[in-house]
Amino acid sequence: MMLSAGNGVPSFTPRVVLELASDTKEEAITWLLSRIRDTQYNGGTELLVEQLGPGADAQEKENPNMFLVGATWQRLLSGAEDLGLFKEFNDGSMRAFTCANKYNFKDFKGDGDSFLSTAECQYIIKHELDTLRAKDETHVPGLSRVKLYPGKSVIRRLLSKGILIQVFPLHEKEELKRLSFAWYKKVKLSFQPLEDIRHYYGEGQALYFGFLEYFTFALVPMALIGVPYYLFDWEDYDKYVIFASFNLVWCTVILELWKRCSSSLAYRWGTLSRKKAFEEPRPGFHGVLGFNPVTGRQEPLYPNAKRQLRVYLVSLPFVLLCLYLSLYVMMIYFLMEGWALSVHDAEPTFWTGILCFIPSVLYAVVIEIMNLIYRYAAEFLTEWENHRLESSYQNHLVLKVLVFNFFNCFASLFYIAFVMQDMVLLRQSLATLLITSQILNQLMEAFLPYWLQRRRNKKMVRKIHKGKTLEDQELPLANQVRLEADMSTYLGTFDDYLELFLLFGYVSLFSCVYPLAAVLVVLNNITEVYSDAFKMCRVFKRPFSDPAANIGVWQLAFEAMSVIAVVTNCSLIGMSPQVKAYFPDSDMQLILWTVAIEHGLLAFKFILTFLIPDVPKHIQINLSRLEFESREALKKKKILEASEVTKARRLGSL
Amino acid sequence: MMLSAGNGVPSFTPRVVLELASDTKEEAITWLLSRIRDTQYNGGTELLVEQLGPGADAQEKENPNMFLVGATWQRLLSGAEDLGLFKEFNDGSMRAFTCANKYNFKDFKGDGDSFLSTAECQYIIKHELDTLRAKDETHVPGLSRVKLYPGKSVIRRLLSKGILIQVFPLHEKEELKRLSFAWYKKVKLSFQPLEDIRHYYGEGQALYFGFLEYFTFALVPMALIGVPYYLFDWEDYDKYVIFASFNLVWCTVILELWKRCSSSLAYRWGTLSRKKAFEEPRPGFHGVLGFNPVTGRQEPLYPNAKRQLRVYLVSLPFVLLCLYLSLYVMMIYFLMEGWALSVHDAEPTFWTGILCFIPSVLYAVVIEIMNLIYRYAAEFLTEWENHRLESSYQNHLVLKVLVFNFFNCFASLFYIAFVMQDMVLLRQSLATLLITSQILNQLMEAFLPYWLQRRRNKKMVRKIHKGKTLEDQELPLANQVRLEADMSTYLGTFDDYLELFLLFGYVSLFSCVYPLAAVLVVLNNITEVYSDAFKMCRVFKRPFSDPAANIGVWQLAFEAMSVIAVVTNCSLIGMSPQVKAYFPDSDMQLILWTVAIEHGLLAFKFILTFLIPDVPKHIQINLSRLEFESREALKKKKILEASEVTKARRLGSL
Repeated sequence: MMLSAGNGVPSFTPRVVLELASDTKEEAITWLLSRIRDTQYNGGTELLVEQLGPGADAQEKENPNMFLVGATWQRLLSGAEDLGLFKEFNDGSMRAFTCANKYNFKDFKGDGDSFLSTAECQYIIKHELDTLRAKDETHVPGLSRVKLYPGKSVIRRLLSKGILIQVFPLHEKEELKRLSFAWYKKVKLSFQPLEDIRHYYGEGQALYFGFLEYFTFALVPMALIGVPYYLFDWEDYDKYVIFASFNLVWCTVILELWKRCSSSLAYRWGTLSRKKAFEEPRPGFHGVLGFNPVTGRQEPLYPNAKRQLRVYLVSLPFVLLCLYLSLYVMMIYFLMEGWALSVHDAEPTFWTGILCFIPSVLYAVVIEIMNLIYRYAAEFLTEWENHRLESSYQNHLVLKVLVFNFFNCFASLFYIAFVMQDMVLLRQSLATLLITSQILNQLMEAFLPYWLQRRRNKKMVRKIHKGKTLEDQELPLANQVRLEADMSTYLGTFDDYLELFLLFGYVSLFSCVYPLAAVLVVLNNITEVYSDAFKMCRVFKRPFSDPAANIGVWQLAFEAMSVIAVVTNCSLIGMSPQVKAYFPDSDMQLILWTVAIEHGLLAFKFILTFLIPDVPKHIQINLSRLEFESREALKKKKILEASEVTKARRLGSL
Repeated sequence: MMLSAGNGVPSFTPRVVLELASDTKEEAITWLLSRIRDTQYNGGTELLVEQLGPGADAQEKENPNMFLVGATWQRLLSGAEDLGLFKEFNDGSMRAFTCANKYNFKDFKGDGDSFLSTAECQYIIKHELDTLRAKDETHVPGLSRVKLYPGKSVIRRLLSKGILIQVFPLHEKEELKRLSFAWYKKVKLSFQPLEDIRHYYGEGQALYFGFLEYFTFALVPMALIGVPYYLFDWEDYDKYVIFASFNLVWCTVILELWKRCSSSLAYRWGTLSRKKAFEEPRPGFHGVLGFNPVTGRQEPLYPNAKRQLRVYLVSLPFVLLCLYLSLYVMMIYFLMEGWALSVHDAEPTFWTGILCFIPSVLYAVVIEIMNLIYRYAAEFLTEWENHRLESSYQNHLVLKVLVFNFFNCFASLFYIAFVMQDMVLLRQSLATLLITSQILNQLMEAFLPYWLQRRRNKKMVRKIHKGKTLEDQELPLANQVRLEADMSTYLGTFDDYLELFLLFGYVSLFSCVYPLAAVLVVLNNITEVYSDAFKMCRVFKRPFSDPAANIGVWQLAFEAMSVIAVVTNCSLIGMSPQVKAYFPDSDMQLILWTVAIEHGLLAFKFILTFLIPDVPKHIQINLSRLEFESREALKKKKILEASEVTKARRLGSL
């Protein structure tokens, strides 16, 4: 999308859009643009920035303060070096890119349009904008209420004060078309185009889709075993011992193998050994002015003790209260269930048979609604806890949401399994919960936003070209940018991982009771790939790429779930009539054996975690070779310098 | 110990001794010395080396091939830079030492005799010797059977071929006298002089003594609680519930706090953030010639698959066989115990009362002997597994020895506690095992070697100065060196940690049954400090310092033990009559509750491990400040360079 100058379009490839509030003062805008354009030596970013012209059918209410940001090729390369981006070297290894060495990188062609992917260019520009720091200004010119602190990020300050409404990267029509065709437009039996996804959306997204694919394939053996179980042992619930044992080994092994798989991907994408940049405070973070003990710069500080008080005295009780509420709702469900069953038993007709399913479906819907409401509450609370770093915010949010969702979704199943010990009801509840939540999720996640988006699009397109169909539109840049600015913002992979986490729970905890669960999850995952792909390409604003090296806190969450799965499966095995038959005289013996075996399995699981290396051998070798080479080079340089100093001294003394 | 030239003593401070085989050819010696003396530019080490003169009372059988190695002050400083040694900076932070910046380090005085400790100087010299690499020689001159590979360590090659008998650092009489006075010569109630120990023996040793001290202090509350228990509830075994609960929390908390304590020490000593040097292959490693995939150099390679076969097909079955044997011995012990009891019961006299203790004492002695024999077997096997790196060798050895020792020492106790459920016998066995093994250990570890050493010393001293006492001897250097060369080699902290590990096991697993255990261990630890200090200062050769940042694999071992302690204590609580009284009707209920609480405690333990940060806050801040500063400096440098290039271009275009 290289654009020639003239008729309101910029003279450079626009990559990122800055939208300022429409009532921002001219003085502030001029100052911001000049700071962005200023040389790095003077503390600027040396990026290119231009105002976006009015749309083809400009209206009064259109925001005029939209700015396109781009960069020269040179600037992008030096930005890549600042970021320590890893690219493929001539010898096939991944190395940190440096401008001095650029011709030794594999795909570097000089002009380099294909060397950095669009996602990388956008990420570089975002990073440069983020690290545009206040110099000696005490406030934004023309806006005395927006204070600035020397050395702190200007963009984050403007974002948290609402002057800057949003910063987002632009879609690339052509590339997007190619990607979406390869990804979800053709029905095929093949892997996802992970490399293309990574090129367009960055490593974080690609890792999510890689994990989704891996998880689906890992479920296939379980689904294959599950089908005959379901077909031939329809009502024979005591046959699940073998299935439970399989389950147990399965969930340990796939998580260990995923770590290896993930580090292979991260190595190929150059994020495995990249050093993380220093984290800036979150945009919403506030506090009393003080000195940062690390950087020595003046910035708002918020005492950790105060945050801990908020976490333990407000958030924790709130979460516990929510858990109690969820328990209460569960009890109501069991009352309804009992009532429906009693009606059905008293006078069984077709309609009472359906009535029996209604409490479960209702409960599943209520669970989803509670999860949704709780999610907002958790976000509000975590925001209020005022975490300084995005990572700490994310960890607290994930923990809150995980605990509640886990409890909300699985409490009733645990109650049925271990307190009521009713395997028929367990199977039925599991099936209803799983199917209902899958249908609801797919609807809420992709089709509802798409439908809303489509209505908005159509309105705008209709205004400009009347009569043409939506698909083959080539909107003018100004309209295209405004269209994208109106799209919903993609909030990261949080919800997607959460959904997978709950599905993993259903399969690993209880699938021995309902062997079709794995089949259902496989089917769901296949449609999930399509709906997620569709949602990424058509529904949401393009997100900035996120150079992730692994799936982060989710690995931990899945591992915790697999530990719980070991305990649950062992208990289910211990409760099965088959096993009970071995200990006809003494329940105590049975329990002691079950507990002993469970402890053994847990120990084995931990040993396995230690024994299987997280990074495949050949990648370890590559990494240590790079380190070795850089050390040798450094040493040689030092010895050479020392010997030159000696020579110089000798010459001097002569 | 700065020595003037003349009468056979070298003109530099001797730091390290190389002892070559007495029949080494002159040609090989000349070559080795010239390689050591050669400049770094030519691939040498630039160290000073001289032959040790004959002793004051030279004998025929004396080995003439002893060499003293030292270095100029300049060379030591550049070596410290190569090693990335961390020293205290002017502002109190710890930074990697660089020669360019030397005047900004706190204790640097110019001549710097006190800047690097003697342990550091010796470590630097050892590192330089170790990294003396073969150039284009294919074998050692004069010794065609000793092949050399370009780029591989010469010293390690000579060591594994037996040409080089040993490399050891020299004691420093004056310093040693001061240290031993502060450490163990006065009876006092104070902390150990950890800083001095670190100065003289290095960080690895100092961390061990730090841990010993920490562990002793951590035991004090338990000992204080234990005494009244022992005094007032002499035969009331069902009162141990509270004690067991305390035990459980205690062992989790002290291990977490030790991590923080250890990283504080390591930060103060500059080993926390030091980068590890590349590990050279172990001296004994052998294999078929090939190319190292990391360095690209030619060296012996040994296929990993072959090693795995040896581990799983030979070592593992051997360990299992030993465990079986240990079980067998245990059963014999129980037979003897039963026989002794029956004799005592039939006709109780004073002598039969003593007879009852004999099986336990015998068993404790047999356990110690089996541990000792197994230790040799494990070393032999691990050597035969042919590990390439010392760290991998150590891990396999530690694992083998730990599993066996744990089993050997605790199997009988577990059997008594959970199978026989005989708390009286448990208490008696525990006491006997603990006391016997402590006495044996202290004897074997310090006094036996000391006695042997003393005999040898006396012989030599008597030869030279007749009539004087041993203490105030000032032997000539040559004799002193030969005396030290004959001392036993200290084999690292392995055995010391192992002993602490077993003591920790006795206390954390079963002390609720025998509350005096903690008291006994505290007493043992206090004498242990003295005997270990004595053994380090007087019995063994001075060891090379080992810049450890933590206690390594032992942290893991202690944590594993604390998990086992949770399980054991929960079971002991569940078995106590006190708790059983709460569930008069149903054993099943009791067991289920015990298991549930145990799982809860284990989960809590893991959450605690996550919640307590391993590194104290202020050290984290210091570390990130250093990283921040180095990044900022790098960035500034780059921007300056770039702007200069731009200026130069502008000038050029003018």
